[in-house]
This record gives sequence, structure tokens and C-alpha cells, in this order.
Amino acid sequence: MKISYRQVISLTGAVRLNICSSHPLVATVFKQYSTRAVVRAKMARKERKEITQQFTLKTPKGTKDWADRDMVLRSRIFDTITSVFKRHGGVTIDTPVFELREILAGKYGEDSKLIYDLQDQGGELCSLRYDLTVPFARFLAMNPTIQQIKRYHLAKVYRRDQPAMTKGRMREFYQCDFDIAGQYESMIPDSEVLCIAAEGLTALGIEDFVIKLNHRKILDGIFAVCGVPLGEVRKISSAVDKLDKMPWEDVKKEMTEEKNLPVEAADKIGEYVKLKGGVDLLELLKQDDELMSNESAAAGIKDMEVLFSYIAAFGIEEKVSFDLSLARGLDYYTGIIYECVISASAPPSEKPTKDKSQKPTDMDEDVSEYVGVGSIAAGGRYDELVGMFSQSKKSSVMPCVGISFGVERIFSIIKAKEDMSKIRANETEVYVMAFGGGKEWTGFLAERLKVSKQLWEGGISAEFLYKSKPKPRQQFDAADKIGAPVAVILGQEEYEQGKVKVKELGLGENADEGKDVEIEKLVDHVRRLLLTLKQQS
Amino acid sequence: MKISYRQVISLTGAVRLNICSSHPLVATVFKQYSTRAVVRAKMARKERKEITQQFTLKTPKGTKDWADRDMVLRSRIFDTITSVFKRHGGVTIDTPVFELREILAGKYGEDSKLIYDLQDQGGELCSLRYDLTVPFARFLAMNPTIQQIKRYHLAKVYRRDQPAMTKGRMREFYQCDFDIAGQYESMIPDSEVLCIAAEGLTALGIEDFVIKLNHRKILDGIFAVCGVPLGEVRKISSAVDKLDKMPWEDVKKEMTEEKNLPVEAADKIGEYVKLKGGVDLLELLKQDDELMSNESAAAGIKDMEVLFSYIAAFGIEEKVSFDLSLARGLDYYTGIIYECVISASAPPSEKPTKDKSQKPTDMDEDVSEYVGVGSIAAGGRYDELVGMFSQSKKSSVMPCVGISFGVERIFSIIKAKEDMSKIRANETEVYVMAFGGGKEWTGFLAERLKVSKQLWEGGISAEFLYKSKPKPRQQFDAADKIGAPVAVILGQEEYEQGKVKVKELGLGENADEGKDVEIEKLVDHVRRLLLTLKQQS
Repeated sequence: MKISYRQVISLTGAVRLNICSSHPLVATVFKQYSTRAVVRAKMARKERKEITQQFTLKTPKGTKDWADRDMVLRSRIFDTITSVFKRHGGVTIDTPVFELREILAGKYGEDSKLIYDLQDQGGELCSLRYDLTVPFARFLAMNPTIQQIKRYHLAKVYRRDQPAMTKGRMREFYQCDFDIAGQYESMIPDSEVLCIAAEGLTALGIEDFVIKLNHRKILDGIFAVCGVPLGEVRKISSAVDKLDKMPWEDVKKEMTEEKNLPVEAADKIGEYVKLKGGVDLLELLKQDDELMSNESAAAGIKDMEVLFSYIAAFGIEEKVSFDLSLARGLDYYTGIIYECVISASAPPSEKPTKDKSQKPTDMDEDVSEYVGVGSIAAGGRYDELVGMFSQSKKSSVMPCVGISFGVERIFSIIKAKEDMSKIRANETEVYVMAFGGGKEWTGFLAERLKVSKQLWEGGISAEFLYKSKPKPRQQFDAADKIGAPVAVILGQEEYEQGKVKVKELGLGENADEGKDVEIEKLVDHVRRLLLTLKQQS
Repeated sequence: MKISYRQVISLTGAVRLNICSSHPLVATVFKQYSTRAVVRAKMARKERKEITQQFTLKTPKGTKDWADRDMVLRSRIFDTITSVFKRHGGVTIDTPVFELREILAGKYGEDSKLIYDLQDQGGELCSLRYDLTVPFARFLAMNPTIQQIKRYHLAKVYRRDQPAMTKGRMREFYQCDFDIAGQYESMIPDSEVLCIAAEGLTALGIEDFVIKLNHRKILDGIFAVCGVPLGEVRKISSAVDKLDKMPWEDVKKEMTEEKNLPVEAADKIGEYVKLKGGVDLLELLKQDDELMSNESAAAGIKDMEVLFSYIAAFGIEEKVSFDLSLARGLDYYTGIIYECVISASAPPSEKPTKDKSQKPTDMDEDVSEYVGVGSIAAGGRYDELVGMFSQSKKSSVMPCVGISFGVERIFSIIKAKEDMSKIRANETEVYVMAFGGGKEWTGFLAERLKVSKQLWEGGISAEFLYKSKPKPRQQFDAADKIGAPVAVILGQEEYEQGKVKVKELGLGENADEGKDVEIEKLVDHVRRLLLTLKQQS
């Protein structure tokens, strides 16, 4: 049964009426004024059932609820990343979840089709943000007095992509971005951003990562010396970008057959993009006279030389792999580009291409749990993006370099390693209980409220059973369920003498006897006990 | 000039080509392959100028960027509210920013027209969430194993309302919600939620607030005994709800002229809704035989009696005003309803109605800076909402009671009292500098990188100037600008002896001489110094 919105709205009212109509007195008034309403009210229960059945009770495709231990683990990831960002002098900004549609237009190349548009309900045309970089560039263009900023931003972005939940690819997902904007001496901020990448992942307990690094100018130079027409560079570059998902043979096929690149040009590109290494690769490229005669490549190689000296000073050279196959999809990069991958998800090297009977999809299945996770952090330099928005000359040049951590992917890696049963969903420290008996026993509800309030005001988190006369067992079970480490027990006699018992919980056979504490000194006592427990664990 | 998306996209490419075309060698290749591309590249600068001029560089109507000190202050508000929520045993969940459209349909009465819809781009029809309550109810219905939860959620919601930025009314704004779901003994969770309201506002430094409290069942009873037809209750209730914005005379006019209520009925309502007080008002109502003979009113009054005893135990009775004029707009409330207002924004009482020459709009202007801020936190009990979504009988009854803090309004109150100049936007603790001179002086960039990395790894936030040979003055100015409290100075000679100078900053005339510290002991030394500085402030 398909029902209109109007019917649902009137039903909502009817459901409320229905409640009242069960009271005899109300029903009298009810009849007096509106027989129709009575009928509506009686129909409400039936209709309501039909409504609930025709509802699809779910979140939209590619989105999910976060709750319980997953939520706690994700919050920890955010906290860790935020503290790394702050350590590097970052300040945070918050931009709206939607932007004027024209702000996003023309920034994402082919992927623009993945942008979520808001319906035209009169007024401005808007779209949900696709990333945090374009809104940041728009913010800088709007605030030309900001000539230098290190900003971080943890927020959700939206892409109408085909979801692959198991691989951590969602339509609504978090990005954690850190960007350095401003005119500085070449490669210094770039090196700090790489340092943040390494530091962030290490802080998250991820050790087996590699930062694949390349430079758009070098890549452009390679394409030029290999004979790629300049108008075709982006197309060929996007084919190279697929090398982490398919073997060279398939990429070559795409270049030559789909994109009409001469076979010799493709083969020459193939020789370059298989190269990877560190400073040694730089030395190799510097001996390549043809490449060095290309101004773009020479400039990129000079940048990389400087960058490598800073990387060495930071002591992260072992984490960096200069990799000529890295191209990155987005249009707006103009300098270094990089992606952090975990070792197990590194691109297929020679091995898989040898066994041609094995399809790429099969490969995905049998390597490791991390495969398909793709890059877990990535970024690059984009010196032109802010200028695209700028209306004043002053701010028209605003070089930027940044990094974005992909939280959903990082989450699935960390969750696989974590003992989730040890995570408490709840942070309650104290369970307030009352024990007593006999005919006179009130259950001490008011007293429990008073003591709880005292604890809350002392900054201690506390809960109690929402029952006026709870049994001891019920209260211990409730405390146990949420894992509260301490109980404050209001005994009938002791409380009247101004005392409560403080007892450590969860000790099993070595159960704590508890200690009588004067109510006035309760907060101090509990604070000290919690500190001791924290230091022990 | 209006240009198409397609043109913008091709331009983005052209702008990139344009960069390369300025390199002579690249330009040669360029010419060789594509004369058209050269023309496009040359046109790019001109076109780009036109594009940027036709852009409206702004955020969508009713939205804003948050940055700098405002952002720090707002984060503090979030932290304070979160810690109060955690103290009461709250766990957090995160739901998607958009929901299936049918989930939101029929929950907000007349205000449904304010819902933002996503464009139909194929697939499901979705809308941006209007509040956090309906998504929470949907979450509970989807997770019937959760029979009890105290959940909090701080997130943005969306309403296509007429923005009034100065009053803190936005189209995108934050709500901070805490809700208790589950079947418990009557009024205990209700009292804790009121306690959280009082505790939250007090923790935020807001003292002059009042919690206006009423009960839907009492209100329904009043309408019944005053002769409002049951089918008209919501309409009359929404007129009463306007009493905080307009005088009784106007509300009465709306009831009688627009909504056809007999004058006697309106006058009788008028006698009730002017009543407010505490337990005394309860006693008064209990002596009203007509009202007490109404089952709904009697049940509500019984609830309130129990509630008042818990409020007294929590010691917040002075903050609560039992106010029969409070109606609340939303359909889904079934029990207590309440709103926290600051004293200065309390509703017009008798006074303004006496002076009939003064229009309500004039009143808004001359009272205080808080006027028009409206309620800063509000909520109530909604026992039927989850059931509207539930597909199983088990979870079809899920009573809930909650509170929502309106952060934008709280922000404007706190900001007005705060000395914003004392807020640091940045949390950088250490500025790493290098001093040296002479021909051999390298500027110690690599050394500064090394020392900074050492501090970061020690958990200390540090910055340095992105310049290879910075002057001392430049470095002190940069440190001063961000308000870093400590400098670590790499002197040419000292550094070679394995030492750096640690110096406290911002002391003006009592400038710190600094202390030489072995590099190996730097992290420990700085940590201790920062701790001392923190304790001093």
C-alpha cells in the first residue's frame, strides 16, 4: 500500500489522539465534538501497522550508523590524528556540509558525476562537499587576509560512488585533512606534510606502511619525452594511475588501443613507470640526458633532491618510496603527489602479470585481509586551486600542500588487530547503589540522586538504577554490565551515620571488602581511588 | 558571461596546460602536436578571469565557516557538554547526515516544509536530517536488541528556515543531544535529564537560566476542560506555544478569530496558561476539581508530583519553573516538555501587554543583548516515536526522554561575555629557532627539522620558520604571532657541543635569559617547563 505524505502527517496526529481516546472522560469530550475523529483514531492502529510495514527501515545506500565499540575505536583514531595535527601547529576550521554548486564545478574532472546535488527548492543551487580541499581553497579565497595557515579539518564528505563496505568504500565517509597554505621556501612545508603522514600512521599503531612519492612535473616531463601530446597528458596519466589496480600489460592496452598512443611511446613510458627507489633513483634520472633536458622534469627532479635532504633530516627516508608509477587522479595537483599504502596492499609487481590465467578480481581475493584497502592517506601540492576562486590579485597565488587520512580504511585495519572485547563503550566510573531491607526500607532513591549529583559535580561519572527499590543483585548486575570499576553503596544504617561504602568492582574471587567513607569526603576519596586504578592498569 | 559546466571542466585542464606551455621545451612539443591546445592555453588566463568574476564567492545562505578564535570557543563548548554527557553514562552514536525521505516524513508537522531534500539522481530519495531525535528513533527501531541506552550525539542538522544570524538562527547548525531510552520507573530518567540541563548550562558558565517545565498530559487536560474539541488540540496548542513571542491578547485573537475557538473557551485557557510556579502550583491544580476529574490532567499532575520530589533531591528546584504556558511545537512529545531560557529572554509577562502602542518587534530591540536568543536547551518525553518505525512487537514500545542544547545560541551568549583576545587559536608550545652568522652559516634548517621531530615524538607541539636562513628577529616575530610560550634556540657553537638553549617567551621586560640544555635531555626539560608554566597560569 502506497500512502501519501499528507496521510502520514494526519496519521501522526491520529496516533496521538488515539492515546487520549482510551481515557473514558476524554472519550466523552471526544464524542461530543467529533465523531469523525473517533473513527480516525480507531483506524490509526491499523493504518500504523501498514505504514510501518511499507517503510524500508535502513540507512541510505553507502551510509551506516556508528555505535558502541566501533564508535569508541573511531573516536580514538580521531583523537590520535587530531593530536598529531595540533603538534604541528594546526588550527581547525569548519565549513558547511554543502557548498554552492558552482564552487565545486570543474574541480574533480570525470569524478564530478559523483557529486550529490541538493534539490532545487527555490533559492541557491547547492551540492554536498566531495572533499575538504575545495572548501578550504574557497575559504582561503574568501579570506584574503589569511596569507599563511596550517589548518586541519576532520569531517564527512560525500561521493555517489558504488559502495564497497568491506573495503571501507562508503558514500558518506570521514576525511582528516591537514594543509599548509602560504608562500614559503620550496619543499619545506612539503617535507613536514610527509613527516605528518609518517607520524600519524605510526601514532595509530600502523607500522608496515610505505609512502609512495612522485612529482607531477617529473611525470609531465616523462610524458613529454615519451612523445605524449600535451593535450593527451591527463588521459595517459589517468591510465598510469591504474597501475596499482591492474598489470602493466592492461594499462598499456588502454593507452594504445583506447587512447591511441603509439606503441613505442607506451613502451617508453613503461620503462619509466616501473622505476622506484630513493635517492638512488634520483641519481639515475639525473643521468638521463633526454629527461634532464626537459625543463619540467628537471625542475621536478631538483625539487625532489631538496625534498630528500629534508626527509633525511626528519629520519623518515626508509618510509618513502620514490615511485614513478604514482599519478593520482585529481586534476588540481601541481607538485609532489603521494599515497600511503600498507605493505600488504602494495601494487601488483611483476609476479601477477606472469600468470595470465589469473584475473585481477581473483587476485583481490587471495592475498591478505588488507588487499583492496588502497591508500590510507594521500595528498600533494596544489598551487593553483585557490587562485581559481580568487577575486583579488593579492590572494590569487596561494600555494598549498596537504594530506588527507582516510579514516574508514584505517579503522578497518586497526579493528582487525584490536581485541574489541576489551574496549568499554561506556566511561562510567561509579555505580551508586542502595542496600537495605525490612518494611521501612524506602530504597533510598532520593539519597542515591543526592549522592550521584555530588559525584557529578565533582567531575566523576556515575550511574544508578532507575528503580525506587532495587535489589542488590540487580544493581551489581547493572554495574557489571557497563563495566563500572567502583561502587558507592548506601547502606541503611551507615548512611544515617553520614557514611557510604566505596568498593572496587570486577575483582572476581578477590572481591574488595569495601571501605566506609564519610559522605563529605566521598568525592576526594573516589577521585584518589580512580587515579590509583588508572595507574595500575 | 554564463558558461557551462563542460566549459569549466575543459578550462581546468587548460589552466594546467597553460603552466607547462610557458616552458620553451614543452612549448615545442606542444606546438608539434596541437595548435588548438596552444590557442586554448592562451585563452585560459582570459577565461579564468571571467570565470572568477562570475562566481559568487560565499557559503550558502544560512551557513557559515567557523574559524580562528570562534572555532576554539565553540570546541570548548562541545568539550564541556560532552564531558557532562559522559558523566551521566552517555555513549555516543553517529548517524548519516541524510536519511531516507520516508523516515523523516510526517514527524515534524507544519515544519516538514523546512526539510532539505537531496536531488533525485537515481536510486533512493533522501533528505538532510532535521534533528537528531528522529534518526535516533530510527536507529533504535533498527536495533531492537538495544532495550536501554543513554546516548549522546553532537552533530549538525538542517532547516530551510529564514536565517537570522544575529539571533543565532542558521540553516546549518549544531545540536547536542542526550536521550535516555528504555522502560524505567516513572519520572526517574526525566529528572536526570533536567539535572543534565541544569548541570550543562552551569558548566558552561551560564547562571541566569530558568528551566520552564510543563507536561503534555496536563496541557491536554486543560484544553479538554476548557472545551477545546480534541481534533483542534494541536492547533490551539501551537497558538499557546507563541506566548513567548507575543502577548496573550494576540494569542487569544489567533484562537478565536483564526481558529474559531469560542471566546469563553479561550478566556478559560487564558486563566490557566498564565499560571506558573513550583510545587505550590501543583497544590493549586490539585484543588481544581474540574481539572482533576480529567484523567489526562490527573495523570500529568501525578507525574509532576513525583518529578518534583526528584528535582528537590537533585537540588535544582530553584532552577525549575512549572509554567502552564509552555506548549512546544513538535508533535511527538507525550510527557514532560521543557525549555531552558536565560532570564533576560524570558517571555513578555503582563508588562508589555499594558503598553499597547509598543509593537512586539520594538520590544525585541530594546531589552537586552540576549533577547530573541530564545531557548538555549529544550526537550521532552516522546514515548511513541520509536514505535512508529518498529517492525517487531518487541521494540514497538520504547519510551524516550531527552535534551538538546542549541550550540549556536549558547555560543553567542558566551562570546558576549568572553574576552576573545585572550583565546589562543593555536596550541603550539615551542618555536624552534636557529641563530648564527658569518659566511659559513647554513641556517641550520636540517638541524631545526631534527630537533622539531624530536619534540613532536615527545608529544610536544612545535613549529619553526619555513626558511633556510632566517634572521633572529623573524623567528621571534613568528613565535610571538602565534603566542608560543617557549623557544628552543639552536646556536651555532652550542649545537655543535650537543646543546640548545631553552627560553621562556612573552615575558616582556623581564625577558628570560634562557638555559642551555643537552639535546638528549631536551624533551624532558621542555615537558617540565611547560608543566610549570601551566600550573602558574
